[in-house]
Amino acid sequence: MRHFIPLPGNEALATELARLASASLGSLETRHFPDGESYIRLLDDVAGKDVDFVCTLARPDNQILRLIFAAETARELGAKSVRLIAPYLAYMRQDRRFQDGESISSTHFAKLLSRSFDSVITIDPHLHRIADLAEIFSIPARVEHAAPLLANWIKNNVKNALVVGPDSESEQWVKAVAQRAGAEQLVLTKKRLGDHDVEISIPDLSRFQRKIPVLVDDIISSGRTMIETAEALIAHGFPKPYILTVHALFSSATYWQLNQLATDIVSTDSVPHETSRIGIAELLL
Amino acid sequence: MRHFIPLPGNEALATELARLASASLGSLETRHFPDGESYIRLLDDVAGKDVDFVCTLARPDNQILRLIFAAETARELGAKSVRLIAPYLAYMRQDRRFQDGESISSTHFAKLLSRSFDSVITIDPHLHRIADLAEIFSIPARVEHAAPLLANWIKNNVKNALVVGPDSESEQWVKAVAQRAGAEQLVLTKKRLGDHDVEISIPDLSRFQRKIPVLVDDIISSGRTMIETAEALIAHGFPKPYILTVHALFSSATYWQLNQLATDIVSTDSVPHETSRIGIAELLL
Repeated sequence: MRHFIPLPGNEALATELARLASASLGSLETRHFPDGESYIRLLDDVAGKDVDFVCTLARPDNQILRLIFAAETARELGAKSVRLIAPYLAYMRQDRRFQDGESISSTHFAKLLSRSFDSVITIDPHLHRIADLAEIFSIPARVEHAAPLLANWIKNNVKNALVVGPDSESEQWVKAVAQRAGAEQLVLTKKRLGDHDVEISIPDLSRFQRKIPVLVDDIISSGRTMIETAEALIAHGFPKPYILTVHALFSSATYWQLNQLATDIVSTDSVPHETSRIGIAELLL
Repeated sequence: MRHFIPLPGNEALATELARLASASLGSLETRHFPDGESYIRLLDDVAGKDVDFVCTLARPDNQILRLIFAAETARELGAKSVRLIAPYLAYMRQDRRFQDGESISSTHFAKLLSRSFDSVITIDPHLHRIADLAEIFSIPARVEHAAPLLANWIKNNVKNALVVGPDSESEQWVKAVAQRAGAEQLVLTKKRLGDHDVEISIPDLSRFQRKIPVLVDDIISSGRTMIETAEALIAHGFPKPYILTVHALFSSATYWQLNQLATDIVSTDSVPHETSRIGIAELLL
């Protein structure tokens, strides 16, 4: 018997999952004590149930304790299984020591989750040198892909689309989206100069004239990549691009900047945001 | 070879510990990525060293990940042992299920720390129904007591002191302080009505006239207990009390309120605060 319990901010997705799975929807109470510590209480009986905690992990640092407390509590109270549904999975980028002494946080974070959950499901984790989550998780970790959903959105909403990936890392991804959308594709070259600074190279674009650019990336965070890319395309005579992403991690300041440069910005609801117009619940069942 | 590394905010204590122990003082770099995730880097070689991470755990939620990442990194890089020095240890209060479904966060938090550290040292953990940290930690957990340091402060600074404990939980504690300070003692009765609401009963106080009240408690958090107690004493004709605590967890708003009611407010530096005038480094060696 499946039982979906949302952590704060994940109520809409948990409700949709419970509806799609014809399963029960649970809830928990959480608040802060005056000293800043978190209080967690599961409000339904979880004994004998397959409990799915729904918790997207954007801005994970002050969510992790209450998530672990919730999982441990469910286990103590007799849950048959305790799973994490994290549409966005944090800490996947720091996957090796680039400089001496650095924490390989992808490994440490995966280890932490592996200790409290029986399994995890996520969408398009932002992996670089890790080919498979099984390299860092000791529990089953299922990955789903939002590319088909983004492709469908493009097919239904943009005529004459040119799907543009901002960097070589996005190549596989852009290809999958473009093929399914029946659109042409273009992958640019990005040089990262720092956390907040990137440089985009644009090749000869004459053959793409009159196309509508649709920038896609798995994640938008600082937004520098998208901003530079959009500016470069506009400077080359293209109309303002559509910007599509799976994980909308950007701040409101970045959103404002992106809005100046885009015809439209659309994301999935893996991280709830006002741009979330593509639902990913069906991938997570 | 001992090596003390402070987490952010714990630099002064780590420096003092390294000085007292004639040990080395390390450092780490920490910052946030644009997406809010934490970056951690140990800046010295820890191979073969007994590493002591110094991290007081007031407001623990968004500190815990970087602390765990630091510990895991030290272990990977060959530290001989990895210890946590947490002058204030969080989450010790919720030690049973008062209502169905509640997280017993003291157990969950201790389990989490036990997985990343070889041992832990703390001062006066705020325990209720747990008699010994060994009940919840699976690693050696050493407890030190600040009562003698508070008693010395009273002896050196307050003539004719009446050491006052706000509730029966503080009884053992008040006795130890009063005896060592050579002062009289009084323990009041507190009724907790909620997180922010308490009621204090005052007995016949005629025999304590002309005494200077010194309110002591192991922790001040919401401050309600101390505020109610100070007001009750003043209403009974006493001068404004001194207020002494080990762990100064209170907010600046609470500090302002307490200041109106106190002759002086003094805490240890277990949680750095402008009232921290009693150093606890010597207890932690």
